[in-house]
Amino acid sequence: MDEKDLMNKVMQELEKHIDLSAKTPAIEEVAAENSKTYSHPGITEFVGTAIGDTIGLVIANIDSALHEKMVINKKFRSIGILGGRTGAGPHIMAADEAVKATNTEIVSIELARDTKGGAGHGCLIIFGAEEVSDARRAVEVALKELDRTFGDVYGNDAGHLELQYTARASFAINKAFGAPVGKAFGLVVGAPAAIGVLMADAALKTANVECVAYSSPAHGTSYSNESIIAITGDSGAVRQSIIAAREIGMKCITAMAGPAPSTTKSYI
Amino acid sequence: MDEKDLMNKVMQELEKHIDLSAKTPAIEEVAAENSKTYSHPGITEFVGTAIGDTIGLVIANIDSALHEKMVINKKFRSIGILGGRTGAGPHIMAADEAVKATNTEIVSIELARDTKGGAGHGCLIIFGAEEVSDARRAVEVALKELDRTFGDVYGNDAGHLELQYTARASFAINKAFGAPVGKAFGLVVGAPAAIGVLMADAALKTANVECVAYSSPAHGTSYSNESIIAITGDSGAVRQSIIAAREIGMKCITAMAGPAPSTTKSYI
Amino acid sequence: MDEKDLMNKVMQELEKHIDLSAKTPAIEEVAAENSKTYSHPGITEFVGTAIGDTIGLVIANIDSALHEKMVINKKFRSIGILGGRTGAGPHIMAADEAVKATNTEIVSIELARDTKGGAGHGCLIIFGAEEVSDARRAVEVALKELDRTFGDVYGNDAGHLELQYTARASFAINKAFGAPVGKAFGLVVGAPAAIGVLMADAALKTANVECVAYSSPAHGTSYSNESIIAITGDSGAVRQSIIAAREIGMKCITAMAGPAPSTTKSYI
Repeated sequence: MDEKDLMNKVMQELEKHIDLSAKTPAIEEVAAENSKTYSHPGITEFVGTAIGDTIGLVIANIDSALHEKMVINKKFRSIGILGGRTGAGPHIMAADEAVKATNTEIVSIELARDTKGGAGHGCLIIFGAEEVSDARRAVEVALKELDRTFGDVYGNDAGHLELQYTARASFAINKAFGAPVGKAFGLVVGAPAAIGVLMADAALKTANVECVAYSSPAHGTSYSNESIIAITGDSGAVRQSIIAAREIGMKCITAMAGPAPSTTKSYI
Repeated sequence: MDEKDLMNKVMQELEKHIDLSAKTPAIEEVAAENSKTYSHPGITEFVGTAIGDTIGLVIANIDSALHEKMVINKKFRSIGILGGRTGAGPHIMAADEAVKATNTEIVSIELARDTKGGAGHGCLIIFGAEEVSDARRAVEVALKELDRTFGDVYGNDAGHLELQYTARASFAINKAFGAPVGKAFGLVVGAPAAIGVLMADAALKTANVECVAYSSPAHGTSYSNESIIAITGDSGAVRQSIIAAREIGMKCITAMAGPAPSTTKSYI
Repeated sequence: MDEKDLMNKVMQELEKHIDLSAKTPAIEEVAAENSKTYSHPGITEFVGTAIGDTIGLVIANIDSALHEKMVINKKFRSIGILGGRTGAGPHIMAADEAVKATNTEIVSIELARDTKGGAGHGCLIIFGAEEVSDARRAVEVALKELDRTFGDVYGNDAGHLELQYTARASFAINKAFGAPVGKAFGLVVGAPAAIGVLMADAALKTANVECVAYSSPAHGTSYSNESIIAITGDSGAVRQSIIAAREIGMKCITAMAGPAPSTTKSYI
């Protein structure tokens, strides 16, 4: 038996015992892993998939009974559906770009307690549209934005940090956080929640920004292990606050469990 | 050193580094894994274990202080306890068969946010009985039903689908979903919740059924990442709706993360 | 190629396929794993880390906007922050010792639905203090107590048990469970929740104790898969009840998934 045969034999033997395709991935790797579509399902309702085990779908003419149960404005016969296992902030920011770019409205934003064993949320976001082409376009835009909006999600085994920034908030951000439309907006998230409190304090002390929302495990989250602030103000001040929060949060989470890399690539 | 010795040495070396008995199991494999009892605990309260990390127990004479705290009808001195880490739908359907078959009532159905890192629920179901033998019988029936009622739970790394059907709903289904007793009943669940919305729409469009309940991450679930509808109507119509929902749901979840096999064996 | 070369080659080949450093850890191993600090983050707010992915922090002068959003009594300009991914009971008991030992008060105790895929909670506990040195001391005491208070947390793949006992409850226990200050206190937790019901019944039947709180997946928990009772009474009676609950709980959880070892070392 030569060397190559032996190697094959070893690998075969190992496959009986362990799943060679499986690694135990970090939460954020889990999020990243399913960003590609395995195969197009061949249904007209399908728009695409993205990072965070996210799927985008449309319904051209939503069933009237479901329309009523979901409490959707009667003027929308079409809906866009964006939902994932990991991430709510990234999806809300992506949806915000989508409503800016299309003739749609945000019907609802719901936060599941998810992230596949992680400390945060998953989400379900519904766009309303009069035409299915608009709903589809909104979902397409949002799916495409997700790679960017996951850029300042940093994770390791202990938890995660999330930072978001936009120079001009639109209706998804307004719906989710009550932040004013048209102004700069920032989101600061730390998990476990203890880190988020420190990040919030740093953000608010760094520059002259207004805190429009504070959420914590028992208030305003879906019992996620996060502390979250939403801030608004001048765009320079908001950015500065976000960066300060990221810096102190990164020090804490690194002290807990080592390096916490970006899920994709930082944009702030 | 011959080939076999070498193989042993390789395996020994590897065991220092990795747990050869461990695979990273899919959620639904996790559910299946603990269906056998490791050893009878030797206590009279124990009835059995089942799929979904489920345990069945009875208390012959529940302590009076606990009786009051749990808000149990005074006429029941005995309770049956059915609870698991993965699954609420399967347990409710199983409990429904149990109340049909025994002299018991459903005291409460509570949904934990669980599934061991998955997108769904775990549960705690309490049966009330005047005699402990009735409570025990109810738990036995329910435990036995679970293999069947997990049959249309399909899962992969992205999420899961759940379909349930009965020709005649009883009091557990009525308690959980407000569906009428004695009529055909169907349950349609999709996770992540985005898929569930599309499945709900398909179910309601397929046949003339009534939607008795719609739940989503922030409404009616325990913040699970699921959209759920409960339907009632003629038995043929309910079945047809369920099958249509399963078909479109399967296409979506397969597009996200590849094949999503049944946890046990489909019954619908 | 000699034997050692071959072994190296096998290991290299395997590293392409699997993460040799990764084992799939039990929940409670996960809790234990991050009890050491990877590196001091070099910020004055940092106090330390502990078991359960716990971090302890202080803020000397909390930002006024955050102070208001967090609804903290105006007399406290400093806060201590204690939070972790796994454990709420251990942290509440540890915080209770901390308030006994320091000039601080409990501002809030919030329970996340966490434990990194397990059945229980994570937590965020805020101490209020007039001086940062007091806040720091409280967090230090609490971090140090956690090794002990995780001692009667027992877990395996199916779930976990948690028992806590103190001869004299203080203000953290009072805040969390409404138990009287100065009296003996016990906590009985079982997950999945079915086990917790049986443990509660056993605890209350064993000795003359008072049940001050009962929580279950849909009532009083953050949708965790636990049933929980908090008991008070004579110290001997409370201990006896706790031990009886542990005994029956251990039998159940062992029947589900084999041995359920202590996270650290039993103290009751």
